[in-house]
Amino acid sequence: MLLQKSQTLLFIGDSITDCDRAKPSGEGLFGALGKGYVSMVDAFLQAVYPELGIRVVNVGSSGNTVVDLQARWQEDVLDRKPDWLSIMIGTNDVWRQYDTPFIKDWHVYADKYEVTLSQLVERTKPHVSRLVLMTPFFLESNKDDAMRRTMDEYGAIVKKIAERSGALFVDTQAAFDVVLQRLYSGTLAWDRVHPSQAGHAVLARAFLNKIGFDWNKGL
Amino acid sequence: MLLQKSQTLLFIGDSITDCDRAKPSGEGLFGALGKGYVSMVDAFLQAVYPELGIRVVNVGSSGNTVVDLQARWQEDVLDRKPDWLSIMIGTNDVWRQYDTPFIKDWHVYADKYEVTLSQLVERTKPHVSRLVLMTPFFLESNKDDAMRRTMDEYGAIVKKIAERSGALFVDTQAAFDVVLQRLYSGTLAWDRVHPSQAGHAVLARAFLNKIGFDWNKGL
Amino acid sequence: MLLQKSQTLLFIGDSITDCDRAKPSGEGLFGALGKGYVSMVDAFLQAVYPELGIRVVNVGSSGNTVVDLQARWQEDVLDRKPDWLSIMIGTNDVWRQYDTPFIKDWHVYADKYEVTLSQLVERTKPHVSRLVLMTPFFLESNKDDAMRRTMDEYGAIVKKIAERSGALFVDTQAAFDVVLQRLYSGTLAWDRVHPSQAGHAVLARAFLNKIGFDWNKGL
Amino acid sequence: MLLQKSQTLLFIGDSITDCDRAKPSGEGLFGALGKGYVSMVDAFLQAVYPELGIRVVNVGSSGNTVVDLQARWQEDVLDRKPDWLSIMIGTNDVWRQYDTPFIKDWHVYADKYEVTLSQLVERTKPHVSRLVLMTPFFLESNKDDAMRRTMDEYGAIVKKIAERSGALFVDTQAAFDVVLQRLYSGTLAWDRVHPSQAGHAVLARAFLNKIGFDWNKGL
Amino acid sequence: MLLQKSQTLLFIGDSITDCDRAKPSGEGLFGALGKGYVSMVDAFLQAVYPELGIRVVNVGSSGNTVVDLQARWQEDVLDRKPDWLSIMIGTNDVWRQYDTPFIKDWHVYADKYEVTLSQLVERTKPHVSRLVLMTPFFLESNKDDAMRRTMDEYGAIVKKIAERSGALFVDTQAAFDVVLQRLYSGTLAWDRVHPSQAGHAVLARAFLNKIGFDWNKGL
Amino acid sequence: MLLQKSQTLLFIGDSITDCDRAKPSGEGLFGALGKGYVSMVDAFLQAVYPELGIRVVNVGSSGNTVVDLQARWQEDVLDRKPDWLSIMIGTNDVWRQYDTPFIKDWHVYADKYEVTLSQLVERTKPHVSRLVLMTPFFLESNKDDAMRRTMDEYGAIVKKIAERSGALFVDTQAAFDVVLQRLYSGTLAWDRVHPSQAGHAVLARAFLNKIGFDWNKGL
Amino acid sequence: MLLQKSQTLLFIGDSITDCDRAKPSGEGLFGALGKGYVSMVDAFLQAVYPELGIRVVNVGSSGNTVVDLQARWQEDVLDRKPDWLSIMIGTNDVWRQYDTPFIKDWHVYADKYEVTLSQLVERTKPHVSRLVLMTPFFLESNKDDAMRRTMDEYGAIVKKIAERSGALFVDTQAAFDVVLQRLYSGTLAWDRVHPSQAGHAVLARAFLNKIGFDWNKGL
Amino acid sequence: MLLQKSQTLLFIGDSITDCDRAKPSGEGLFGALGKGYVSMVDAFLQAVYPELGIRVVNVGSSGNTVVDLQARWQEDVLDRKPDWLSIMIGTNDVWRQYDTPFIKDWHVYADKYEVTLSQLVERTKPHVSRLVLMTPFFLESNKDDAMRRTMDEYGAIVKKIAERSGALFVDTQAAFDVVLQRLYSGTLAWDRVHPSQAGHAVLARAFLNKIGFDWNKGL
Repeated sequence: MLLQKSQTLLFIGDSITDCDRAKPSGEGLFGALGKGYVSMVDAFLQAVYPELGIRVVNVGSSGNTVVDLQARWQEDVLDRKPDWLSIMIGTNDVWRQYDTPFIKDWHVYADKYEVTLSQLVERTKPHVSRLVLMTPFFLESNKDDAMRRTMDEYGAIVKKIAERSGALFVDTQAAFDVVLQRLYSGTLAWDRVHPSQAGHAVLARAFLNKIGFDWNKGL
Repeated sequence: MLLQKSQTLLFIGDSITDCDRAKPSGEGLFGALGKGYVSMVDAFLQAVYPELGIRVVNVGSSGNTVVDLQARWQEDVLDRKPDWLSIMIGTNDVWRQYDTPFIKDWHVYADKYEVTLSQLVERTKPHVSRLVLMTPFFLESNKDDAMRRTMDEYGAIVKKIAERSGALFVDTQAAFDVVLQRLYSGTLAWDRVHPSQAGHAVLARAFLNKIGFDWNKGL
Repeated sequence: MLLQKSQTLLFIGDSITDCDRAKPSGEGLFGALGKGYVSMVDAFLQAVYPELGIRVVNVGSSGNTVVDLQARWQEDVLDRKPDWLSIMIGTNDVWRQYDTPFIKDWHVYADKYEVTLSQLVERTKPHVSRLVLMTPFFLESNKDDAMRRTMDEYGAIVKKIAERSGALFVDTQAAFDVVLQRLYSGTLAWDRVHPSQAGHAVLARAFLNKIGFDWNKGL
Repeated sequence: MLLQKSQTLLFIGDSITDCDRAKPSGEGLFGALGKGYVSMVDAFLQAVYPELGIRVVNVGSSGNTVVDLQARWQEDVLDRKPDWLSIMIGTNDVWRQYDTPFIKDWHVYADKYEVTLSQLVERTKPHVSRLVLMTPFFLESNKDDAMRRTMDEYGAIVKKIAERSGALFVDTQAAFDVVLQRLYSGTLAWDRVHPSQAGHAVLARAFLNKIGFDWNKGL
Repeated sequence: MLLQKSQTLLFIGDSITDCDRAKPSGEGLFGALGKGYVSMVDAFLQAVYPELGIRVVNVGSSGNTVVDLQARWQEDVLDRKPDWLSIMIGTNDVWRQYDTPFIKDWHVYADKYEVTLSQLVERTKPHVSRLVLMTPFFLESNKDDAMRRTMDEYGAIVKKIAERSGALFVDTQAAFDVVLQRLYSGTLAWDRVHPSQAGHAVLARAFLNKIGFDWNKGL
Repeated sequence: MLLQKSQTLLFIGDSITDCDRAKPSGEGLFGALGKGYVSMVDAFLQAVYPELGIRVVNVGSSGNTVVDLQARWQEDVLDRKPDWLSIMIGTNDVWRQYDTPFIKDWHVYADKYEVTLSQLVERTKPHVSRLVLMTPFFLESNKDDAMRRTMDEYGAIVKKIAERSGALFVDTQAAFDVVLQRLYSGTLAWDRVHPSQAGHAVLARAFLNKIGFDWNKGL
Repeated sequence: MLLQKSQTLLFIGDSITDCDRAKPSGEGLFGALGKGYVSMVDAFLQAVYPELGIRVVNVGSSGNTVVDLQARWQEDVLDRKPDWLSIMIGTNDVWRQYDTPFIKDWHVYADKYEVTLSQLVERTKPHVSRLVLMTPFFLESNKDDAMRRTMDEYGAIVKKIAERSGALFVDTQAAFDVVLQRLYSGTLAWDRVHPSQAGHAVLARAFLNKIGFDWNKGL
Repeated sequence: MLLQKSQTLLFIGDSITDCDRAKPSGEGLFGALGKGYVSMVDAFLQAVYPELGIRVVNVGSSGNTVVDLQARWQEDVLDRKPDWLSIMIGTNDVWRQYDTPFIKDWHVYADKYEVTLSQLVERTKPHVSRLVLMTPFFLESNKDDAMRRTMDEYGAIVKKIAERSGALFVDTQAAFDVVLQRLYSGTLAWDRVHPSQAGHAVLARAFLNKIGFDWNKGL
């Protein structure tokens, strides 16, 4: 387990991270962490490692692209001084190119995505103990699908940045691809983007496995 | 134009037909016909052929399969004595096999679909002037996609029944496939099932063209 | 078809244009374009000319007169830099003279209407490719009706400005008059102002015909 | 003043009578009589003739035609044993012929209107002290308007029945026509049917004048 | 009739004047004038004197005392430049002394009431054609009741100011006292303050009689 | 203290007893006993005599007269088998005579009130340990007020029945009269009927004093 | 893994099982399984063992005791013909003895609990492949706390029945006690009954471990 | 009785004081004082000592700690110039240490609590006639419970400050402990913090007894 006693773990991202978290600050009781993978990660950390006392905070925001993250980075990331930071962004950067193709102001293309995410990572590295970079994903098993291809391209950018910066890298698309061999994409999400609880379990499991979580601890 | 003065045209189907129509009877003022292709068909009939005085009625119901249609056929179709009947059903019959694959009671497989739809058509033919059969569709351009393959199979059944029964046949999938050559499926529908207004325009146009609607009438 | 690839087409007007569009910006998914003729125009453009990739934006606002348009022209028209602009205004300028005759501050009389609309047109011409001027209308077949007479006067002003400025001119009143020969005005609108979907089809059809839309394209 | 101490005065009709009255019984405190002419009649009776102690009851129902009245006559009129009964019906009988001309089941034509209203009057006469028949009306000053012509025809039927049965006759259309010489119809009602408070004042005044109400009593 | 063609008549006061009027400006369609005596006055003016074209505006506000009126006098009275102004204030000035006797900051005693109302009247006289002063009232027939005694004292102040300033004086308490000889106070208002529609008819009638309204005009 | 260990104490009455209690059964957690004197009685019994374990149940119902109680007596009183029963009824029996004087069906006059209440008491006596009869009251200090006089008459009937039947008698009017010497009636209730929390404290105190509650227990 | 391909797994219980599941049938998309341990179990089964195709159904109901289960056993358990059945009941049976101690009808004492649960188990055994019995629990670390003592007693009954019937036994209290050594009870639940997501993770983990779930499958 | 005629008594605290009071100022009619002990204190003061005319004001705010009080002290206490001030604070200062132990910014530890409360008391003493300090409490009878131990420590601090400053001291924990000998803590509050009406009666009684309230006055 890489997390250490009393550390703060902050998650930032889009609607998949947000999942109805409390505003302005996603932490505390009464479902403040939302209904997605962040809440599951917190639940299992607290249930299995209560002695660590990890403080989990969710500052995901629905509809965000990496450009939106940049605009609120100081307030929502740096000012909160987390020990760990996990970023999963890119869904909307890609999706707008496919669901509203004619509104080009809403698109964030790969070059801008790479530059912006890189800058955020570099700016943040000195201030945190560990950084986790999670790829965006598309719940479509057909790798020739146009949007899937673009999403894979963005995932490759995340991987490159992770390697360059020494961040932990979580390949969410790879984790989903295992399941998509057995289940039709529509079983996990009607829109191929917002996953069911099963999809969030895939995400939480991929994250926890990466940080050395021992599922059999105490058994 | 195949429709004749003062005829009643009834549409039955699932959520794509329903589109928030008034309940229990989808006809009259204040959006009673819903927000989809049925309302568009009615709007253009009234705008371009006001002298015909066509009465359009929408009895689509969200979530319905052909088995659900069967259960309310007497009350919602035969008792209303329409001159024309248009049926578009099958989306849910197929979709449940893909979004809730483990709940098999909710699936309507191809054999049951064919038998049931055939019976409804045969039972109704003597009572109406004209019958229109519209295929179900899936807004996915990849014809090897599992659900698209199944949907195409159901579309073929509709075609077969239309030919056998002499009904007018509207190939909605073919109409969409033209558009999908240019637009990504997600532009027309996040879930590849419930179309945007543009998708409903495709449906309305396919329907109207089939019944001999003259778009340039009066120009 | 006068529209060219990747152009932006902006509609401004009153409640007939607004029709519950998204605020502050009427474009994108989920019915953002409202439920009226603007949404229909967009739907048919996308369904029939998907290869053009036209971006349609709706900035109509309920209750607006030409004076209200003037107040938000910079922000809602010029700053958005549309290629095409369509204006349909005047309903409330006239209507207030008839529904609240004693509240004279709310009336916009013909001289002020003409001056203001002219100025907006002149100010905008250098910045757009094409301008469309649609007349206001009143769904009353009796041309001796007082409010109909006034509305016709405002329509004539629009025609004059269109001619002077070289804008495309859409005579919505004429389009409706054809239908009103067959249908009682109350069939299209209880209040003779806010049309049913059939009325919006009349408007969309008049607009599309004027810009060279080919209804039979691809058939 | 024709009303006598402790009498009950029942009003029946459509939405113009209903006006959000309490259900199931429109009498008592807290606006139970609705917001229209019935409430005004009650208010002035109580304010000017408090010593009479007149009990006013409103059983108007939105959307009703004379056929709907017939269906609830026993329960809503006869069982309540009023001393006076006032009927104003016919708006919807006519309106449906003009706003939904293709849905003929919803129309009540003049012959059926006359027969049904006559029967109700004859059936009720033996059980009440006085009967008041108010004409339906249409807030359109152009007597050549199609719907106005039909409404006048229904008003003439009411007059004929009133004369035959000895009922008090209130010509609401005539009362409105005086005002329509000065005000455009749209000032009184956007839809020419549901009047403003000013329109309800016209109705209340016409009713009260007919029953001998002395506006200057006590001055 | 003292009102002249095209004049504006503004009403200011507390909840009895307000009665759910539209905010910020109580004028126009759709019940903007509220549900009380102001709306009734407007309705009868328009119904009986449509040729005068009187513009009625309601700026009453629930809970107001004369001190609250003072705070918004410039904006809500003077800036609106009415021809006529009608003031009915004092209910809350008195009531708070009786319903929350221990919260003395909320009371407006007689001396402050007189000085403040006087100043408002003097400040306004030069700017309006006519001023109407209506007394506050308490729907309690027992003149020895403590709150009734105080309310009568405030009514006497209004009378004194009216006489001094030449304003038209409407003695609402006297008008109600006639009715209270026949009806128990609780019939007009559970709380002896907010009248039923019958109570508002008493107020409207007292106002209209004072300005020379002819109830039998046109008969 | 007359109450004994583990007894059930049931309260029945009108809105003053009801006070938003849970339906269908007013007992248990989360404010199920309502917000009035019943809840206060329960709170002080539990706070001061926790060792008694008294089960308090509230079956008051807004708007009820003694005739309404009679209709639900078997179900709401006898079937619940309480050890103690407290009845406070009569407010609406009297009030309807004063707030809706012309709707005589809604009045319950003194003779009917006496007979009905007597019968309920006699029918119940054999089944309960103790019966408490509380008078209705009117928060008006003027004993010559018409409604106060009637309410006092009904209070006298309650006293007579209490004496005859050996029930404990709580003179709520007398308890309020002490307070009304100091406070204006409107301080306790705008409508002189539904008391503030202070009024409910008067009721709870009168009830508890009658059953031998020791306020200083344990001090 | 004890579960086999295509089996149905039904959960029944009280609010801890219910957690806002869909009614009447807790299965399918859109959070139909609720927000608690049942949903987590399903999510991990689908994420880790998609090839098994387990159908999970939740028929928990808030507030239920074992007596309530008995009343709906035929409809909600037997008629659904599950392969596996998991029961967790007893919280309310015990809690009512402590939160509403005076309302004895609401308590289910240990003897009745044991008899009823035993009968349900015996009646069901022949119809299911496997039965899982989960103890109720109380999130209080002090084993001398009165309610904890009682809850432990009910847990012991569950254990006894599980042993007798050969059911799988999940000791939820033991699982929680491990966590309660580190976390104060109030961290898991303000009311010591309804757990946070962390508490539901404890329950899901205890259940899954018992049925042979391999957390590291596929890694 | 220590309170004197016409004094103002202000209560400040957290949710137990707040109890849904009116905002921004908790005084006046319609439940403005909330639903807890403050409202009960006011009700009994007004019911038993109406001649004193005590003005009770509630400025409690849910979720407040002593640090939150400090931030609004000038506005909510000093500017209101009360004669008496009652403070009950500390619940959240302690609770956050136990329900969200990992979010340390939300905790107010004993030293900060003592310093802050002391300062507020010293700053206020010169401006008020009397000061009442009520301890926070925890509805848990087990004095070895961790949170109970901490709460007792905070109670001891309140006692020390009361003694030092000459404030009246109300030991709410002691008052509850008497009841907790008879009732399980869960009967008074599911969360052991927010008491039922019975718990508020304990608080109101402890407060009133301390200020010399005579429960038997006037009997």
